Amino acid sequence: MKKILVVGGVAGGATTVARLRRLDEEAQIILFERDPYVSFANCGLPYYIGGSITERSKLLLQTPESFKARFNLDVRVNSKVVAIDTKKQEVSVEESDGKHYTESYTHLVLSPGAKPFVPPIKGIDLPRILSLRNVPDTDKIKEMVDLQSTKDVVVIGGGFIGVEMAENLVEIGLNTHLVEAAPHILAPFDSEIATMIEGELSKHGVNLMLGKKAIEFSEEGNQVVIHFETGETLKADLIVLAIGVQPDTQFIANSGINLDERGRILVDEHLQTNVPNVYALGDAIMVDHRVLGGKAHIPLAGPANRQGRIVANNLHFDKKESFTSVLGTSILKVFDLAAAATGSNERSLQAVGRAYQPIYIHPNSHATYYPGATALTIKMLYDPNTYEVLGAQAIGQNSVDKFIDSVAMAMHFKGTVYDLAEVELTYAPPYSSAKSPLNMAGFVARNIIEGLMPHARFEEALNIDPSKQILLDVRDDAEVAERKLEQSIHIAVNELRHGRENELDKSKEILVYCAVGVRGYIATRYLLSKGFKARNIMGGMKLSGGYGIQ
Amino acid sequence: MKKILVVGGVAGGATTVARLRRLDEEAQIILFERDPYVSFANCGLPYYIGGSITERSKLLLQTPESFKARFNLDVRVNSKVVAIDTKKQEVSVEESDGKHYTESYTHLVLSPGAKPFVPPIKGIDLPRILSLRNVPDTDKIKEMVDLQSTKDVVVIGGGFIGVEMAENLVEIGLNTHLVEAAPHILAPFDSEIATMIEGELSKHGVNLMLGKKAIEFSEEGNQVVIHFETGETLKADLIVLAIGVQPDTQFIANSGINLDERGRILVDEHLQTNVPNVYALGDAIMVDHRVLGGKAHIPLAGPANRQGRIVANNLHFDKKESFTSVLGTSILKVFDLAAAATGSNERSLQAVGRAYQPIYIHPNSHATYYPGATALTIKMLYDPNTYEVLGAQAIGQNSVDKFIDSVAMAMHFKGTVYDLAEVELTYAPPYSSAKSPLNMAGFVARNIIEGLMPHARFEEALNIDPSKQILLDVRDDAEVAERKLEQSIHIAVNELRHGRENELDKSKEILVYCAVGVRGYIATRYLLSKGFKARNIMGGMKLSGGYGIQ
Repeated sequence: MKKILVVGGVAGGATTVARLRRLDEEAQIILFERDPYVSFANCGLPYYIGGSITERSKLLLQTPESFKARFNLDVRVNSKVVAIDTKKQEVSVEESDGKHYTESYTHLVLSPGAKPFVPPIKGIDLPRILSLRNVPDTDKIKEMVDLQSTKDVVVIGGGFIGVEMAENLVEIGLNTHLVEAAPHILAPFDSEIATMIEGELSKHGVNLMLGKKAIEFSEEGNQVVIHFETGETLKADLIVLAIGVQPDTQFIANSGINLDERGRILVDEHLQTNVPNVYALGDAIMVDHRVLGGKAHIPLAGPANRQGRIVANNLHFDKKESFTSVLGTSILKVFDLAAAATGSNERSLQAVGRAYQPIYIHPNSHATYYPGATALTIKMLYDPNTYEVLGAQAIGQNSVDKFIDSVAMAMHFKGTVYDLAEVELTYAPPYSSAKSPLNMAGFVARNIIEGLMPHARFEEALNIDPSKQILLDVRDDAEVAERKLEQSIHIAVNELRHGRENELDKSKEILVYCAVGVRGYIATRYLLSKGFKARNIMGGMKLSGGYGIQ
Repeated sequence: MKKILVVGGVAGGATTVARLRRLDEEAQIILFERDPYVSFANCGLPYYIGGSITERSKLLLQTPESFKARFNLDVRVNSKVVAIDTKKQEVSVEESDGKHYTESYTHLVLSPGAKPFVPPIKGIDLPRILSLRNVPDTDKIKEMVDLQSTKDVVVIGGGFIGVEMAENLVEIGLNTHLVEAAPHILAPFDSEIATMIEGELSKHGVNLMLGKKAIEFSEEGNQVVIHFETGETLKADLIVLAIGVQPDTQFIANSGINLDERGRILVDEHLQTNVPNVYALGDAIMVDHRVLGGKAHIPLAGPANRQGRIVANNLHFDKKESFTSVLGTSILKVFDLAAAATGSNERSLQAVGRAYQPIYIHPNSHATYYPGATALTIKMLYDPNTYEVLGAQAIGQNSVDKFIDSVAMAMHFKGTVYDLAEVELTYAPPYSSAKSPLNMAGFVARNIIEGLMPHARFEEALNIDPSKQILLDVRDDAEVAERKLEQSIHIAVNELRHGRENELDKSKEILVYCAVGVRGYIATRYLLSKGFKARNIMGGMKLSGGYGIQ
C-alpha cells in the first residue's frame, strides 16, 4: 500500500492530496502544514485586509476536518517537516508544542511554497515591520491597520503583493506609501505600461516612491523610520515588506534532493526530483519558460494547481505526464483598472538577446456606439523572423483579462501574429468590436512585417534632428490645442491630401503621430504614396505619459 | 490604373475600400450602396430602437463625405447595382430617382450583404409587418414603437436579431411576444443552453411562443392578427419579422458569376469568384466551416471585416492570401446574461454523423471568496478519438465572452482538451480562479478520456430502470429538501464513506448526481473503488431546467 506524505497544504499540496484520494481510495495520505491553516485563499489575503472580503472564514477553503470528511485525508497542521531522510524514506516532523516524530513514506511530495524575502538590513526585525504570507500574518496586519493610531503605512516592494496591499490600505483610508527600489513597479510590465499603473495608484492617493532603496530601519516613539540610500527618511506606523519571495526549502538542504543555488527545487518535466518517488511542485520549484527557454521561477497559483494534478497522476499511475512550461501569465487589479501580461516583456527579451518587434494599439473594450466602452492600451511583442508572439501586456478598465487570455492561448500553440489576425472571436456591440483587439494587434504587426507601415518608437519623436526630420502631428485642432509634442508641426490627416503635403520638405524624413496610431498610419501611407520618406510613431500620444508628458 | 467598383457599403465593403485606399493612392475606387447610408452600425440597430444607443448619429460610422475627406473615395449612396456584364467589365447602376448608367471596372468587389427572409405567406405585406436590415428600416420601426397606440409587438423568429429585438422592445416597455417555429430559439445553441436563454427572456417579461408557425396575417382594426398552424391567433400593433436572412444577389444572377442554389456567391479560398478580377465577401458568400468541413453560410460582422482586408490585399498585390474557414463564433446579450458559442453544437454534429462527447461544467466567473462571482454554465464538445475541441457554448452574467474567445483561439489551432487543461490564463481573485474554466473543461474531458469518470447524460436520470439502476443524490439535506429528482435516494457525499455505501445494492448500477457534477464525481470515484458500478450524471441538477424541472 502506498503511504504518501505531502509537505505543504496550500494551493499545490491541497490539489495534490484531493486528486490522489480521488484516484486511490486505499492509499494512506498525510498532509503536513507548518501553519495552523491549510488550503487558504492566499491570493485573497490583501482583500481581507482591505475589507473587500468581509468574512475571515471565506479565506479558509478547506480545513483538516473538511478534508477528513470528504476525502479521508490525514491533515496535520502546526506540523513542520524539518528534515528528510531519503535513504530511510522518512521525514522528521516538529509540532508547534516542540514534540518531534518521524513518519515513513513510500512517496513524498514537496509543496513547501515560498516565503517573503527579508533582506538583512539593520532594524528589519522591528515589531512594526510585517510581511504577508499566511493567515496568521494577515491577522497580525489586520489588527495593526485597524488600530486608531495607525495612520501611515509603508509598503516596501512594488511587486504584485505590494501593489495589491497598497490598494487595499487606501481602501481602508490609510495614508499609503509604496516604496520600490527599481525605477518602476511590477517587473512583468515594461515601463510604458508600468507608468500607467503608477498613474492609477497616484490618482487614488498612493504616495509612490520609486528608485528608493531602504537601507536601515529605526524606531522613533511609536513609529518606524525608514532610512533610504539617498539619505531621505520616512516615518510610518506600520511597514509591510513585500520585496519578493524565496523558496521555503531549508529542510530539504541536506536530503540529497537537488536544489539550485537559491534553494529552489530542481525537477524534471514530470515534476520528479532527482530522488526516486519524490515529487515537487508549486512556488518552490524551477520550471521551463515557454518563450525564453531556460529555467524560471514563477510563484503563481495557476501553475501550482495544475502541477498538483500532474504530480498526483504521475505518482498514482506511474505515468510520465509533463508539466510543459510557463508563460508567466498574470493579472492584477489596480483600483479601477486591470493590468495583465503573458509571455516575455521587452526587458526580459533584451536580457537574453532575443530579437523582437513591439507594437502598440489602443482599442476600445467594445463598439464605441454602444454605451460603456472603455479604452485599453496594449503592447505586444513578436519575433520579427518567425512572427511568433513573444508576449503581451494590457491595461484598461475592461476586457484586459479577455485579451491576455486569448493571447496566452495563442502562445500555448506558439502562434504567430497571422493567427491573431485570423482568429474569429465573439462579437456583439456590448462585448467587442467586429475587428477584435486581437485581430487589430495582428493587423498592425502584419502591416509592419509586410513593409506597409514604416514605424518609429515614441522616444524618437522626442529626439528628432530638425535638420533631417520633421515631426508631423496629424490630429485635429482641438487635440493639438490641448497638448502636443515639442518641435511638431500640425496638419490634420484629412488636410494632407488637400494640397497641404506641399508644405512638407521632401528631403526630410517625416515622423508622423496622432492620438493612438491609426490616423498616423493613414497619413504615413499617403505620404509614402507621394514619394515622402515617412514613419508612423507607434502608440501615438497615448503613450506620452510614460515619457513624462502629461 | 485600376478602377475598382465595390458593391455594398456596410461592414465588408467599407473595410475593403478603406484598406484599398491605404494600399493604393492612385486607384479609382467607387463604392455603390443601394441605401442612403454606408458603413452604419448594423449590429447596433436594435439597441437604438431600444434606447441604449440614444443618438441616431452614432449609428453612422462613416458618411460619403467622411470617406471622401479621409480616403478620397467616391461613395455613391441610393445607387443600386442592378446588373453586371462581366464580359464588358461594367455594371448597371440605378439611382433612387430612376436614372440609369453604366460604370466600367478593372476590378469588381461584391459585398451586397443579406436581406431579411420574407416568407410567401398571405398578408405578409401588411404595413404593420416590418423587418430590420438598415437605417431606414430602423427609423420606421422606431417611429412605430414610439407611438402611444403601440402596445403589443410580436417578433417572429428567435434568431440573434429576433432575440435582440425582443429584449429592446421590453426595454422600452412594450408587451413583447417572441414567436419561433422550432422547439427552441437560437439554433447555434443546444436545447439545454437555449432553455436557459428562454428562461431569461421569460423572466424579463417576453411572452415566448415556441413551436408556433405563423401561416397567415390579417388585419383587424389597427391591429394585425397572426394565424398559427395550430389554429391559435395573436393580435399585435406591430410585427417585426426576423426569420432569417438571404443573400441580396439577384443582380448577379445572369452575370456568369457562380451562385449556389440559394443565391449565395461561391468563392475560392482567396475570396475570388469564378470570374477573373471579381471578388466577393460578407453575408452573401459561402465559406468553409472549420469543424464540419463543407460550406457554410455565416452572416456575421467579424468574418466580413476580416474578409475585406483579404480582398483588398489580394486585389492590390495580386497575392493569394486565404480566408481560412469559420467557426461561427457568436455572442448575444440577453438582459442580464450573455450567451456565446463557437464551433459546432451537438445538433450540427449529429447532422453530419461526426462522433463527439459533450461535457458540462458550471464554474464561477472568479474566486468565490472575492465578492461578485457569478455562475457560468458551459457545454463543450470534443472528438472522442482525436480529443479535438469541436465546439463550446456558455451562458452567464460574466466571463462568457472571455471563455468562448479562448476556446475559439484553441479551435483556431485545432487544439485538444489536453491543451485546455494545460493553458496558463490570467488569475487573480477578482478575475478568475486558479483553475480557470478552460482548465476545468479540460480536466473533466480528460477524466472521461482516461476512464476515471464513467458518465451519464441528464436524460438518463429521468428514465432509470429501478430493477437495474439506483439514482443516487449526493447533495446536502437542504438542497434535497428544495428540489430533487423522482426515484432518487439520498446519501450526502461525505456520508458515503462513513458506512452508508452499504445501503446501496451492489448488483445495481448507481447513477450519481449532485448540483453541478463535482460531488457526483467524488462519490462516483468512491463507489467505483468499493466495487460498485457507478456513473456520474454530467452537469447535475443545474441542467434540470432544460428538462422541464423547475
